[in-house]
Amino acid sequence: MRDVAVIGIGMTRFGELWETSFRDLFVEAARAAMLDAGVERIDSMYVGCMSGGLFVGQEHIGSLMADYLGVTPTAATRVESACASGGCALRQAWMEVASGLSDVVLAGGVEKMTDIDLNQATYALGTAADAEYESFHGATFPGLYAMMARAHMERWGTTSEMLAAVAVKNHENGLLNPMAQYRTRITREAVLQSTMIADPLHVLDCSPVSDGAAAVVLVSVELARKLGRPAVRITGSGQASDRIALHSRSDLASLESTRVAAERALAMAGVRIADIDFAEVHDCFTIAELMVLEALGVYPHGQAGPATLAGETGRAGRFPVNPSGGLKSKGHPVGATGVAQIVEIVKQLRGEAENGRQLARARRALAQNMGGTGGSTVVHILEA
Amino acid sequence: MRDVAVIGIGMTRFGELWETSFRDLFVEAARAAMLDAGVERIDSMYVGCMSGGLFVGQEHIGSLMADYLGVTPTAATRVESACASGGCALRQAWMEVASGLSDVVLAGGVEKMTDIDLNQATYALGTAADAEYESFHGATFPGLYAMMARAHMERWGTTSEMLAAVAVKNHENGLLNPMAQYRTRITREAVLQSTMIADPLHVLDCSPVSDGAAAVVLVSVELARKLGRPAVRITGSGQASDRIALHSRSDLASLESTRVAAERALAMAGVRIADIDFAEVHDCFTIAELMVLEALGVYPHGQAGPATLAGETGRAGRFPVNPSGGLKSKGHPVGATGVAQIVEIVKQLRGEAENGRQLARARRALAQNMGGTGGSTVVHILEA
Repeated sequence: MRDVAVIGIGMTRFGELWETSFRDLFVEAARAAMLDAGVERIDSMYVGCMSGGLFVGQEHIGSLMADYLGVTPTAATRVESACASGGCALRQAWMEVASGLSDVVLAGGVEKMTDIDLNQATYALGTAADAEYESFHGATFPGLYAMMARAHMERWGTTSEMLAAVAVKNHENGLLNPMAQYRTRITREAVLQSTMIADPLHVLDCSPVSDGAAAVVLVSVELARKLGRPAVRITGSGQASDRIALHSRSDLASLESTRVAAERALAMAGVRIADIDFAEVHDCFTIAELMVLEALGVYPHGQAGPATLAGETGRAGRFPVNPSGGLKSKGHPVGATGVAQIVEIVKQLRGEAENGRQLARARRALAQNMGGTGGSTVVHILEA
Repeated sequence: MRDVAVIGIGMTRFGELWETSFRDLFVEAARAAMLDAGVERIDSMYVGCMSGGLFVGQEHIGSLMADYLGVTPTAATRVESACASGGCALRQAWMEVASGLSDVVLAGGVEKMTDIDLNQATYALGTAADAEYESFHGATFPGLYAMMARAHMERWGTTSEMLAAVAVKNHENGLLNPMAQYRTRITREAVLQSTMIADPLHVLDCSPVSDGAAAVVLVSVELARKLGRPAVRITGSGQASDRIALHSRSDLASLESTRVAAERALAMAGVRIADIDFAEVHDCFTIAELMVLEALGVYPHGQAGPATLAGETGRAGRFPVNPSGGLKSKGHPVGATGVAQIVEIVKQLRGEAENGRQLARARRALAQNMGGTGGSTVVHILEA
């Protein structure tokens, strides 16, 4: 298989984008990525999207986006793995370039979540869980993650203050990201006093409902050199599944699909987690960031919370996590999230992160993108 | 890239399967394919599904199916391209084996369309068109294909009798397929006298709403030899997109994505259309089969209708088309269709088609699977 590099990145602002349609969001991000890559032609494209059907009444999303991007008859395929759809799109694009089948492949992700009311959005998001055994009986995602948080607290002593520290840190980062949905500083007290959504998760422990899109252009490392573009290599890719319903898991307080996907990606890259400088991870709820860091092996079980409280995952800390602001502050248009993580990592590895958000040490990074309560995970390793 | 072969096939019966759930349909087909292949382990899987969200309130379909198939933490990805979702799943699985990343990959497709009422199903199918410019204004798929049929009649002299001949021929074939939804012989008169749905398309010009699943197991040709399983090689794969909305096309009476996808697949296989013995094609409406045969280059424009009337596409004809019964008689659970085409082709190439449906000459075949009104097409070439 060939070595693959990212040579172009683009994304829309994340937020409640009433003025921009589903298709226009994707085209804006894809055009920006193609411009950044300096390519006018792509051989193939993948679109990560969780539920075009329920959010905007549109499937056949590959064809739609190829059409509006003006690249027909280019092959275009939509991939879905709930909130990990973007990561899956990247992985398929990586595979197509690595295989030698295509030279220039675009991977994008998009979701337009605010065209329906919040009850409908909660229903749509619930389709990422086990519909027949979880959502149809009333379980919502805040409720499912609240159970995981409670289990983690009982077993590992994690506290609400530790959860709040994740939100505070990610808002500090998002404040500096011009594309972020919430550019507001929050305090630990504000999180703890905010409305309780599903005990122990307050509203400020939850990522928002968002509109947005992100895209990257992948080529072989050889072609990147020929084109003379700054190339960020994808040195590892790993994907794994887990039992979709919480009641089928052996442990509510750990994330098996993340553990396995990371193991696979790190093995492919030939590195250990200690060799990674920073990470973008799937903080759909504050508890998720802590559980992910433990599943990745950054911290032993029960230690991610105290480390976060101590500032270790801040921009100046030992292992910066979510310098983009994460899903919590940057926003979480579910299909776009996995690709937006790559946009931030490439910016950091190029030394181009805006507003003083640039990390001091940024040579090798990890992206972790997760579907549902961890029913699927995609992990990528990128190197400057 | 490595040579890839199909070594296992499986499918459920197609029809109104009230007693079988979405997940159980997929698992039944996937288990049958794994049993047929003689493998107990897969490295990765793809699930083609058009709209789990709208049909059954379930997304995150890769994770769900990996879970119920009992193969977690295997990587599992759902791919979608409307009614071409199954063909896309096959293509991604082929790519993964061809790249060398994985040795044993399952490609499946599934749709459970009868859990909602017919109005809702019509809405769900409409999401394969351009939602904002076609479906939201009332266009349905019979309506869109009726416009294409009318254009083809005006331009090329195609008649209702020629359309009816497609339905009659496909029902003759489906009569012999134990998995088919409609195992009934129909006459040309019955088609012409059946209820008009969207002029010139009668109800017997339309494929049905169906439940069902199909799956295949792919391995490298080398591994197939080691395992000692009968291997059908995938020698060509092509995919293309087209403008999604009919009003954006330069010609309503031709299918550009099918022309391009076939050109790519044939080029990869190093053969011409004249070298193909038979085909499974996307006859969602009778007019589609004629337009596809012309786009593939089997017949010049305007000649597919007369050839069908003359019996050339029957089982004993010059170029048998849809020996399985096609979407028209076998049924059309949209996400499963592209994979079910492969199941029939493999049966034919192995010489295992049931009930005297076996073709005399079956060494090399083509599968054409199409999304929407041709906004996407996937074509594969298979050889014994």
